[in-house]
Amino acid sequence: MQHDISDATVDVCVIGAGFAGLSAARALVAAGRAVRVIEARDRVGGRTKPGMVAGHRVDLGGQWVGPDHRRLRALAARHGIATEPQFETGAKLIEFGGTVKRYEGLIPAIPLLALIETDRVMKRIERMAAALSASAPWAAAGAADLDRDTVDAWLARHVRTAGARALMAIAVRAVFSAEPAEISMLFFLAYIRASGGLEPLISVRGGAQQDRFRGGLHALSEALADEVGRERLRLGRPVAALEQDAAGVTVHGGGEAPLRCRRAIVTVPLALLPRLQVSPPWPSLRQGLAQRSPMGSVIKCHVAYRTPFWRARGLSGEAVSDRGPFSPIFDGTPEGAGEGILTGFLEGEATRRFTARTPEARRAAVIATLTRLFGPEAAHPIDYAENDWLAEDWSGGCYAGLMAPATLTGFGPVIREAAGRIHFAGTETAIEATGYVEGALESGERAAIEVLAALNQDALNTVS
Amino acid sequence: MQHDISDATVDVCVIGAGFAGLSAARALVAAGRAVRVIEARDRVGGRTKPGMVAGHRVDLGGQWVGPDHRRLRALAARHGIATEPQFETGAKLIEFGGTVKRYEGLIPAIPLLALIETDRVMKRIERMAAALSASAPWAAAGAADLDRDTVDAWLARHVRTAGARALMAIAVRAVFSAEPAEISMLFFLAYIRASGGLEPLISVRGGAQQDRFRGGLHALSEALADEVGRERLRLGRPVAALEQDAAGVTVHGGGEAPLRCRRAIVTVPLALLPRLQVSPPWPSLRQGLAQRSPMGSVIKCHVAYRTPFWRARGLSGEAVSDRGPFSPIFDGTPEGAGEGILTGFLEGEATRRFTARTPEARRAAVIATLTRLFGPEAAHPIDYAENDWLAEDWSGGCYAGLMAPATLTGFGPVIREAAGRIHFAGTETAIEATGYVEGALESGERAAIEVLAALNQDALNTVS
Repeated sequence: MQHDISDATVDVCVIGAGFAGLSAARALVAAGRAVRVIEARDRVGGRTKPGMVAGHRVDLGGQWVGPDHRRLRALAARHGIATEPQFETGAKLIEFGGTVKRYEGLIPAIPLLALIETDRVMKRIERMAAALSASAPWAAAGAADLDRDTVDAWLARHVRTAGARALMAIAVRAVFSAEPAEISMLFFLAYIRASGGLEPLISVRGGAQQDRFRGGLHALSEALADEVGRERLRLGRPVAALEQDAAGVTVHGGGEAPLRCRRAIVTVPLALLPRLQVSPPWPSLRQGLAQRSPMGSVIKCHVAYRTPFWRARGLSGEAVSDRGPFSPIFDGTPEGAGEGILTGFLEGEATRRFTARTPEARRAAVIATLTRLFGPEAAHPIDYAENDWLAEDWSGGCYAGLMAPATLTGFGPVIREAAGRIHFAGTETAIEATGYVEGALESGERAAIEVLAALNQDALNTVS
Repeated sequence: MQHDISDATVDVCVIGAGFAGLSAARALVAAGRAVRVIEARDRVGGRTKPGMVAGHRVDLGGQWVGPDHRRLRALAARHGIATEPQFETGAKLIEFGGTVKRYEGLIPAIPLLALIETDRVMKRIERMAAALSASAPWAAAGAADLDRDTVDAWLARHVRTAGARALMAIAVRAVFSAEPAEISMLFFLAYIRASGGLEPLISVRGGAQQDRFRGGLHALSEALADEVGRERLRLGRPVAALEQDAAGVTVHGGGEAPLRCRRAIVTVPLALLPRLQVSPPWPSLRQGLAQRSPMGSVIKCHVAYRTPFWRARGLSGEAVSDRGPFSPIFDGTPEGAGEGILTGFLEGEATRRFTARTPEARRAAVIATLTRLFGPEAAHPIDYAENDWLAEDWSGGCYAGLMAPATLTGFGPVIREAAGRIHFAGTETAIEATGYVEGALESGERAAIEVLAALNQDALNTVS
């Protein structure tokens, strides 16, 4: 079956060794295909990244796993990598309207009317999201109208209390690393739909922040790379160009001889697609989509203290602030550590304000927020680590690609559409858990299935 | 002064031979600097492009010149290229709410209340735009709030009649090739501010569509290239990478030996910036801005008839439609031609619907619109020419880069900020006439002045 394409070096070349690319490669290798994975960075794992703070391994990128993230949990199980629950014993803090309050459970200490309205709006959003098709949100009745609104505009029309609006804005920033004015209401709902609801997205217990991995999430990308086979990986090799013809794809770049394959899978975020010179050019709607899928703006920071002093005061370490710039915050202390770690984020507008400043200025602003929330003990950390994802060359932002109004309806339908022999994966293209590592894994599996079918069809076409 | 940088091949390398790049190069050459202009396409002129229909030269891209476009008019004057007024004698047509009506002058035939409100809203927008600083619209009081709204959301809140909303949407599509939901209100106002008002942008007489050039606007880019000196141009050479160090910039790509320069000027649209591999990477806010400046969506079409039959019926050829997909339309007949040409656009959502369809399907839809508007005579053209700018590899859309909410305030302040030794021009970076050829010329001059100052400073630094 394969003798007819004599110049094919491998069946499939996968661009990108994040979870999407590795997931696709694993499935293709399992199906007996010859695969090469080419990665620009000198490491695997994409938007996960290992770091150290106070002698403990921490995740500078993706970190948590939710109960429904079955592919990621299965990967961990295969390698005996244990999870530990995100610590959440004790009271939470909320800084809101100039004062810091503590509260227990799910109900923040804000005015009752705002709470009631938040609950009502959340339920309405859940219903609207549930009504969408996960695979074709643009086809829903009313999709065009929803895609004309930003989340901000929708909230402004449908939410009356300033408190509920502020809470919703905090939720949007936490999930998207973007301001509510940056994203389309339809995109927001489709993203929620892909994870089965808004509450799972913003929750710890039962939600996307439920568990962490011992030794960090990034270690799972290494485990997945082992499954693919290290001999199939080429790290530190930015692909410069992809040339298609009737029989295959030639992959240029990375200081190696051009690699020939029958099909390629591109897993880079949409916003980075223009970095690949392609011949023929991308189809026009894909080019337009790539221009309209900016990455979220986030800087992740870990602040280490001699002890988790907040726990002794009955605090869980979880905190949000409407003033910022450092919000939300979680207890990031690894189980069994003597030191305490607070882990949190500069998101959206706060990232734009701080990305061009010095690390010292960022550190000072982060500690100032922590001190307002957790008191004077927070002013004296023993260590600090951060990662500015907006400045990360091969990501261009995190957590994921975002869409402003008129993008999902106008350009979205091509998101998983192959461009000739080039197929697409990456968490942005996921139908389940879009934007999460779980989505990346799902997208890789879907692309692999797509490519296997195409390879079979190619072979039939050649025979006939 | 120049002997100290021994490995510099030229003083300045300009990436892109559109009007911005040629304008910068001309100024630098005039100042005695050694310049090289490198262009990916095999022609100069960027978003202007020559075409033929029924034996007449037409513009497939930029076409018109307004009374305030002094740089463009001066260029034409230097080369003895004459303008001719855009034909507008006779009645205009408007298809609105299912019927086609004709009207004279500026007042379309729509319900009186809608007209009164349109007038009121236009005046309000003019006042809001006039209050902005052309060079720093993000610094205005209230800028953050204006940058949270899309134009659509703002119109929905401030315009009551469906008629006024529809007219405003027609105006937005005509100016931006985008839907009102795609662009931020602050961006909209800043763009208007840069051209001295909304009415000039949408008008023929006294506005940006007042005159055309005999032989087409594209010919002026050729004239400007002659002024720069053809020996300084390299066409058909896509730049792949720019490497910066303390002394200069090395330009790679285009199948030539790397070119060394002291400073570079990049003139490509922001959306295409990621196509240049740069070392060090772009500053994070510039990378974020490039991800958030999608190009407008437009397909330009010329339809030729045996005669300009509409003129005999007292029609100017000017028409708009709220149904589309072909709107707006102008008389594109060159002076002295026997044939008649109607020139118009598929814009925004209409472009997205038609870009992936066949040229025949587009032609049929264009002629169907013309037949509804101009009657059965429009059903039988003798020639047709079109250009899908969304599919144009080295533009990625037209007329210009657009910004959704939260972009101009969050990322806009870096738009003209050099990245080390790399400076920026292009109509998106213009302070005057942003989005127009005039803006491209202005941006090139501004970048040239900036680079000349930097080169002088470099020389002083080396001496001291």
